[in-house]
Formats: sequence, C-alpha cells, structure tokens
Amino acid sequence: MAEVRNKRVVLRNYVVGFPKESDMKIVEGRVKLKVPEGFDKVLVKNLYLSCDPIMRVLMIKMDFIDEYHHYTPDAPLTGYGVSKVLESGHPDYKKGDLVWGITKWEEYSFISPSQICFKIEHTDVPLSYYTGILGMPGMTAYAGFFEIGSPKKGENVFVSAASGAVGQLVGQFAKLTGCYVVGSAGSKEKVDLLKNKLGFDEAFNYKEEPDLDAALKRYFPEGIDIYFENVGGKTLDAVLPNMRLHSRIPVCGMISQYNLAEPEGVTNLAHLIFKRIKMEGFIVNDFYHSYSKFLEFVLPHIREGKVVYVEDIVEGLENGPTALVGLFSGRNVGKQVVVVARE
Amino acid sequence: MAEVRNKRVVLRNYVVGFPKESDMKIVEGRVKLKVPEGFDKVLVKNLYLSCDPIMRVLMIKMDFIDEYHHYTPDAPLTGYGVSKVLESGHPDYKKGDLVWGITKWEEYSFISPSQICFKIEHTDVPLSYYTGILGMPGMTAYAGFFEIGSPKKGENVFVSAASGAVGQLVGQFAKLTGCYVVGSAGSKEKVDLLKNKLGFDEAFNYKEEPDLDAALKRYFPEGIDIYFENVGGKTLDAVLPNMRLHSRIPVCGMISQYNLAEPEGVTNLAHLIFKRIKMEGFIVNDFYHSYSKFLEFVLPHIREGKVVYVEDIVEGLENGPTALVGLFSGRNVGKQVVVVARE
Repeated sequence: MAEVRNKRVVLRNYVVGFPKESDMKIVEGRVKLKVPEGFDKVLVKNLYLSCDPIMRVLMIKMDFIDEYHHYTPDAPLTGYGVSKVLESGHPDYKKGDLVWGITKWEEYSFISPSQICFKIEHTDVPLSYYTGILGMPGMTAYAGFFEIGSPKKGENVFVSAASGAVGQLVGQFAKLTGCYVVGSAGSKEKVDLLKNKLGFDEAFNYKEEPDLDAALKRYFPEGIDIYFENVGGKTLDAVLPNMRLHSRIPVCGMISQYNLAEPEGVTNLAHLIFKRIKMEGFIVNDFYHSYSKFLEFVLPHIREGKVVYVEDIVEGLENGPTALVGLFSGRNVGKQVVVVARE
Repeated sequence: MAEVRNKRVVLRNYVVGFPKESDMKIVEGRVKLKVPEGFDKVLVKNLYLSCDPIMRVLMIKMDFIDEYHHYTPDAPLTGYGVSKVLESGHPDYKKGDLVWGITKWEEYSFISPSQICFKIEHTDVPLSYYTGILGMPGMTAYAGFFEIGSPKKGENVFVSAASGAVGQLVGQFAKLTGCYVVGSAGSKEKVDLLKNKLGFDEAFNYKEEPDLDAALKRYFPEGIDIYFENVGGKTLDAVLPNMRLHSRIPVCGMISQYNLAEPEGVTNLAHLIFKRIKMEGFIVNDFYHSYSKFLEFVLPHIREGKVVYVEDIVEGLENGPTALVGLFSGRNVGKQVVVVARE
C-alpha cells in the first residue's frame, strides 16, 4: 500500500490573546491508506472542516472541559467535519459511508467510532451543511432555542452574533415560532443579510451603537423574552436590564470573551433576581439524542426554502488558519467552512 | 375615638452607598384607631418587623421592580411584618386575627387585604417566626432550594451568607435531603453557629480566606452541585469555576452588590457553558401558592427540634434603623427582627 501526502494544520503553541495565523502552521506528513490489522478505527478522507468559536477555547491550557481534547503544540487541530470512509476497522462503518463528527485538520484521519456523531443519510442537500445547519450548529440552535429557551408565539427574541453559524438559525426558528426577532451583527453587510435574506424583523450593527442599552430599548420597548447569548461581556450587561419578567437566556457562547486575558466583568446580574431570569449554559453534546427529531423538523424546511443557510466557504486546508482566525474578528459572513476536498 | 401616638420610621432621602442610620428618622404621628366607614382596609397593630436585604434596593429610585413599592422620602418604610388586626373594614379579617405580610414601619397601620400574605393559624411557635422561618425567608429558602435547586441526595451544596435569615434554612434543608453542605459567613461566631448549632458539615469565614477559590477547592474537591446565591460579586466569580457539570445556582440575592455604586464585575460566566450551569433568579412571591405545603413540611420539623432558627431580636421600633443598617455590615447573627410590641 503506497503512502500518500497528508497535509495538516497543527498548533504552533498555546495561544494568548487573539489567535493569529502564525499560531498555526501547515505541515506535510505521509499516511498509509490502510487500517492496520486488528485496529478498530476508521480511516477517513476529510471533505469539509468546520471553524467554530469553541476552538479558540481549546487553544489554551484548561482543565475543566471534559468532552473536548485540548490542542497540544505540534498536533493537528481537531474539530467538526464531514468525512468519507475509505476503510473501516469497525463493523458499524464501511467504505463509502459519509459521516460527520469530530475529525482532525488534515487530509486523511484515523478516527474512533466514538468521535463520529452520525452517518449522513440525506445527500440531496449540500454536504457542507453537515458542518452547519445539519450538524453541530444546527443542533445547537435547535436545542438552545427550543429546549432551553422555551419560546412561545408572540415573544420577543434577541440574538447576538446573529448572522453566525448558530444565530442565523435561531432567528429563523424564532420566526417559524411566531416570535418578533432582532439580531445584532458587526457589519452593514451582515445586517442587510439578517433583514433581507434571513427574515429577522430588525437588525443592527452593534459597532455603530455607542449606547447598546438605548438600542435595545428602541428595538424592544416592552423588553426581551429570550436572549440567545453568543457573545457575553458588555452585550450581556446591556441586555440584562432589558429582559422581561420570567425571561430566558440560553447561553450558547461568549465569543467576545475568549481572547481576553481579563474578561469583561458583568455587573447587572442582580436583574436575574428582579426579573426571575433563567440563564442556562448548554452544550450540544447533551442533545444529540434528539438529532433525528431535529432532522425531521429542519429538512423539509430546507427543501421548501423556508429555512435558508448562509455559508462562507474557503477552499483548501492551507487556508484553514486564516478562516479560523477570521471568526474572531467577524470577517466571515455566515457559517465558516473549509473545503479540504469535495469528494 | 381617641387618637393615639403612632411612631414611625421614615426615609430621609434616597440612599447612596451603604445605608446609614441617618438615612432614616423617627417621627411621631397620631392615629385614630378606627376604620372609617366604607373603607375596606384593615387596621393593624404591628408586632414584629422584618429587616430584609431587599429593603436596601427599595431605598433608591428604580423602575424595574413591579411587585414592590419603592420608598419615598418622608414616608414610612414598608416591609414584612407580623401584625394583629384591631379592626377590619374587610370581611376576610376580624378583630384579633394575627396576620403576616407587607406592613409599614410604624406602630399602627391601615393595610390593604392584598398586602396580607397569610393569616397565622399556628401560634404554638414564636410569633416572630412569621418574619423568618415561617414567613418570607422560610418560603424563599424552601422554593429556592427545592424548586430552583432540584437537590438530590448526596449532592454538594454551598451557601453564602449562610447564617442569615434564608441561608441557615437552606443548609438545614440540604442536610435533611442528605446533601453535604458548606456555608460561608463573616465572623467566627457565625461559623461556630453554622457548624455547632445549624448542622452544616463545614463552614468558613470568607473574610479570613484571601483566596476564595482555594477555599472552595478545599471544601469541594469534587465541585459544587448547588450554589445558593445570596451575595453576588466576587463570591459568585470564585464559585463559577468550582461548579460541577449540570449544576444549579438559585439566585436569591446579591447583598454584597446593593450598596456599590459600581457593582463588581463577574468575569467567569463562560463556565455556565462549559459546565451547563443553570443560574436562575427567583422571587418568593411566585411561590406563595405552595405556602401550606411548606408549613406541612416545616412545622413538624420545628416542633421536633429537627430544624432550628436563629433570630437576632432588637427591642423597639426606634432601634429599627440601627438593626436594618446592621444587615449590610453583617452585624446581625441570624434573622434580624425588630419588636414593636409583643402583643
């Protein structure tokens, strides 16, 4: 069995502050496309890799995230991706299967069956969707909005990072539920997208709002019932006094804080009491048992064009570091995907 | 009908920073002990008044608490109390009834039936208990710990302000549930009380712990399942990284923050995500429908001596301001009560 090239993106060293392209490097290894005898792993060709904010958290040394393997210098990054099985040492998978789950930032990987989230059964939709609307971000939006947020028709919903991989879906799910939904994002292009393509009732550019509290009072004169939290810090602090009685804050992410040596302090938490707010962090892994229910819900909407999904697709693993770093300056418009190979 | 003296505690002006005795003053009015014809209020003699942290919040101008009337200068403070009905303009109450609910800081008050929480049916326990264990703080501890906290046998519980009106009950309810419980308080006397009288497994003086994170790691090497939040600020920030997966934070109060012009920023909120923590504010008013169930639970425990209650009783309405101010420096040991009259 001949060896082939295996390009990889590896971490150079633990990251401090905003991640830079130079925190990663491209290396070329070699790999034998053969599962060794008695080895129960699956050999895959990686097709699409997902750039996710959580990856920033994995670039530092931490001890409190049980579900994720932290990155270590000189090892390839890991993350969600769509892959094709080339050979399987495990009876549940066979050559040609398409899967999505946790893989490595390289061309070919040996992965454990436990890292695979699901086999891909529906291929009439773009395969890249399994890094987004049909993958972890989609399931995150679904679980966070419906399970943690408990939305009711007519409620007022605010979404930060609203054009991102998760936010754009939360907004559309809110509209499907009959809610009024406003999104914030960081550029005119994203705001236009929210209002004109994604169906948000209103959207604003938070960078052009010197007084976020005033902006929220303008869009939510009666207050917010659900704040879908993606950013944390100052945004959360401005949102808290604008929440309504018995409102909910599903905490999905706090991307504004991950690169700060000293996170911004949140000072308005006493509003949790005054307004009886439920603020609940969640991780999608706890909800994958609902994945088939989620697909039944979302696939028809995609096919009928009632839910759309905006992707920002970068070609080539070698462009992965730039794409990943871009997440933290908001360069991407929509879900950031890296194409390693199309088939 | 002769008029009698009606001593009152009134607010001098809106309060900034820590409240001082001089923010209040004692005035003497006169009152006719007679309900005017056609007036549906209830004339009561106030017996016991309750000093509660929320009263500090009512001393400033705010617009977001619907359930409470804010204080206004020259008007008497309002708060929870135990009162005796002298005359009633409302058919639900009659002379001689004992009631607890929201009354005014004065000797005699006309109160609306809607301000009365409950008629007192059980008088084989101290009447003052209806400002504490059998009143708002007791119901608060019960609802917050059992309803919001969802405790399970064997879980690890941390309570701040643990010797206070609510905290001392949370600890005892936790022990009744089979939990391991640790309390923090601000003096050696209170720590001794927690360990020797109130049955906490461990207790510590937070003022003598330069590194609160280290203290929590010492008492909770496996982390905290329920943090009953009474104080906010730095304590909350130290607690968050010590919470376990799927842990809960019932947010009852944030007394450390009420007197600060700039509340302390909480920086560790991203742990809500990593640990899937549910942090939920609550106000006891939402739980009074369970009051009779609560009495059924707690009265037998009191009678059998299985739940005890520590009160700090001050004699005389004129000493009310000192007692109230003392709450915010932690001068009181146990529930702070002001006796206006014993019958």
